[in-house]
Amino acid sequence: MIITLITDFGDFYPGVMKGVILRLAPRARIVDIAHSVEPQNVFQGAFLLYHSYRYFRNAIHIAVVDPGVGSDRRALVIKTKNHFFIAPDNGIAYPSAVEDGIVEIYEIDPSISKLVGELSTTFHGRDVFAPAAALLLKGDFKYFSKIERMKPLDLFDYSFEGRTLRARVVYVDRFGNLITNVPASVLAGAKGFNLHGVNFPMVRTYSDVPIGKPLALIGSFGTLELSVREGSAAKMLGIGSGQIELEVLK
Amino acid sequence: MIITLITDFGDFYPGVMKGVILRLAPRARIVDIAHSVEPQNVFQGAFLLYHSYRYFRNAIHIAVVDPGVGSDRRALVIKTKNHFFIAPDNGIAYPSAVEDGIVEIYEIDPSISKLVGELSTTFHGRDVFAPAAALLLKGDFKYFSKIERMKPLDLFDYSFEGRTLRARVVYVDRFGNLITNVPASVLAGAKGFNLHGVNFPMVRTYSDVPIGKPLALIGSFGTLELSVREGSAAKMLGIGSGQIELEVLK
Amino acid sequence: MIITLITDFGDFYPGVMKGVILRLAPRARIVDIAHSVEPQNVFQGAFLLYHSYRYFRNAIHIAVVDPGVGSDRRALVIKTKNHFFIAPDNGIAYPSAVEDGIVEIYEIDPSISKLVGELSTTFHGRDVFAPAAALLLKGDFKYFSKIERMKPLDLFDYSFEGRTLRARVVYVDRFGNLITNVPASVLAGAKGFNLHGVNFPMVRTYSDVPIGKPLALIGSFGTLELSVREGSAAKMLGIGSGQIELEVLK
Repeated sequence: MIITLITDFGDFYPGVMKGVILRLAPRARIVDIAHSVEPQNVFQGAFLLYHSYRYFRNAIHIAVVDPGVGSDRRALVIKTKNHFFIAPDNGIAYPSAVEDGIVEIYEIDPSISKLVGELSTTFHGRDVFAPAAALLLKGDFKYFSKIERMKPLDLFDYSFEGRTLRARVVYVDRFGNLITNVPASVLAGAKGFNLHGVNFPMVRTYSDVPIGKPLALIGSFGTLELSVREGSAAKMLGIGSGQIELEVLK
Repeated sequence: MIITLITDFGDFYPGVMKGVILRLAPRARIVDIAHSVEPQNVFQGAFLLYHSYRYFRNAIHIAVVDPGVGSDRRALVIKTKNHFFIAPDNGIAYPSAVEDGIVEIYEIDPSISKLVGELSTTFHGRDVFAPAAALLLKGDFKYFSKIERMKPLDLFDYSFEGRTLRARVVYVDRFGNLITNVPASVLAGAKGFNLHGVNFPMVRTYSDVPIGKPLALIGSFGTLELSVREGSAAKMLGIGSGQIELEVLK
Repeated sequence: MIITLITDFGDFYPGVMKGVILRLAPRARIVDIAHSVEPQNVFQGAFLLYHSYRYFRNAIHIAVVDPGVGSDRRALVIKTKNHFFIAPDNGIAYPSAVEDGIVEIYEIDPSISKLVGELSTTFHGRDVFAPAAALLLKGDFKYFSKIERMKPLDLFDYSFEGRTLRARVVYVDRFGNLITNVPASVLAGAKGFNLHGVNFPMVRTYSDVPIGKPLALIGSFGTLELSVREGSAAKMLGIGSGQIELEVLK
C-alpha cells in the first residue's frame, strides 16, 4: 500500500518523516504529492488532498497542515471505503473522507511518539503522523482508539448574489493560474467573469485566446480557473489565494 | 523499468501523475528529474532531458512542457534504441530521441484519458502522458498508432560572427550559473568572454579564481557556463535564460 | 539499504545523481532529505544531516555541499556504527559520523568517475559521490582506500558572556522559524530572549501566544528556535542564517 504526503513543510521535514516511516515499515512506498501548501492554509491542503487522493488506489494519505500542533487538537486516522487518511483534526481530511465514505474514525494516542523519540511540540509529522502511517501499514491499531466525530470543512463555500459570485481562490499554481472552488456545474451560461476591472472570457482551452490575454476555463480540478495564456493571472491582478468577488458576464 | 519525469509543473501536479501511473502500473518506479522548468520553456525542457536521459539505463522518460495543451498538437511515444520518450509533439524529446536513435514514433490516442476520467483541456500530464507511461510499462500499445514524423528542435543553435558568439543561456541553476548551449568543442583557443561589460576568464574550475569573482568554464553539461565563485552570475549580470551575445577574448 | 540525499543542488541535478545510482545499482532505494541547503552553506548541510540521519536505520547518506568541487579536497566514505556517509572532506559529515561512532574512513579515488563518463570539475555529485554510493551498496570497495583523518566541524559553537548568548541561526525553515544551534540543556532558567529589540518569551508551544506574536521554544531539532505564531520570525526581524547575539532574559 502506498503512503502519500501533503504538507506545508517545504524541504527537509518531509525527508525526516520518510526516515521514521521506513524505519518502522521498511517496505513502505512513499509518494510526495505537495509540500508547498501555503503555511497554515488548512483549506488549501484540504482542496489539494481532495483533488489528488482519488487518483490513487487504496492508499494511506498523510495530510499535515497543522497550525494547532502542540495544542490539544486531536490527531486522526480515518478509514474510508477505499483509503486511509492520517491528519490533524482540523478539517483537512474531511471533504475527502466524506466523499470516499467514512467507515471508522480513530484518535491517535500521542504516546505513539515513543516509537520515534521524545514528543516535540512542533513537529507531529515526525512524532505522531509518520509512525501512525507505519503502524497502519502493518495493521497495528494499538495506538488508535475509535471516536465518533471529526471537525468538518466545506470546500464549496461560494455563493451567488445577483451577478456577483463570492468565491475563493484556493490555490495559485506555478503558472499563476487562479484556481477557485466554484464547480463547472453551477456556471452554465456564464460568458465570462470580471475581476478587478479585467475581463476573463470563458473559453475551452488556453489556445482559444492570443498569447498574453486573460481567459477563464474549467481547469483540471473541475472548477473555475482564471488564467493568462503563457502568462500569470496572479501577476496580472496582483492577487494570491483568498476571497474574491467576481462579476458574472452573461 | 524506471519512469522519469521532467515538467514545468512545480509542486502538486506531478504527485497526481504518480497516482495515475501507480494505479495502472502498481510496480512502476518513478524518479523525478526536474519540475522547475521555466513555465512553457520547451527549449529548456529539451536541454534538461537531453542531459539527463543518458544517465539512466533503458528508462521511460516523460517530458511535459506543453504550451499547446488542449490544442490539436499531438501526444507522442517515441521508441529509441535504449529508451522510450513520452511527450507532446513540440520538439522537447527530439534531440534526445535522435541522439539515442529513433526506432518508432507513435501518436497517443487522447481517448486513453478514459482510463483516468474525463479528458481535461489543461492537464494532459495526468490524462494522457501518465496513463501512456503505465500502459507502455505493461507492453500495451492499444492506444498508440505509428506515425512517420515528429517536430524537430535544434539545441545547438549558436553562431559565430567574427569575435561575436550568439548563443543561449538555456538554464540558470540554483547557484546562478548561466548555462549555455555552446559545446566545449567549438571553444578551443578562447581565453575568456565578455558579457555586458564583465570579463569571464576561461578557467578549469571554480577555485581557479578568488571568491566573488566571475569565471567561465566547461560545466557538467559539457557546454560553456558563466559563473561567479561562491556567488551568482545571474545576479551579477541581472539576466536569466534567453539569447546572449558574447565577445570572445583570444 | 536506503540511500539518502542532502544537497544544495535544488532541482534537476539530484535527478541526474539518481540516474547514475540506479544504473549501477538498480535495486537502490533513494530518499530525498533536502536539496534546498543554502548554496555552499556546509554548516547548514552538516546540521540538517545531523538531525535527519538518526531517523533512518542503517542507511547510506550522501551529503554534497561542496564549495571546493574541482579542487584537491578529498571525497570520503565514512563507515560508522550504523550508517555510511558519503561526502566531500569539508566537515559536512563530521558531527554525524562522530556521534554514530566512526569505524573507518575511506578516500574515494576520483577515477571512479569513469563508471559515469568524464570527470567534470563542477558536479562530483554525479561523477564521484553517486557512483560511490552505488558501489558501496553492492559491497564493492575497489575505489576506496583507508585514511586516518577527516576535517572536523563543530556544530555547537555558541558561547555565553554574561547575559549575552552568541549563537548561530543555522537554518530558516519554510515558516520563517529561526533555528539556532543552542541546545535545550544550556537554557535552563531563561525566561526569554531579546534580539534586535524584539522580546521572544520562552514558551512550550506556538499556541501559548496569540497569533502574530513572537515566541521562543525548544523546537524539533532540540535547540532554541525563535518564531512568530502563524507568522515569520525571519520576516519580522529581516534576518536569515548567520551569527546572532541574543540577550538572555531571566
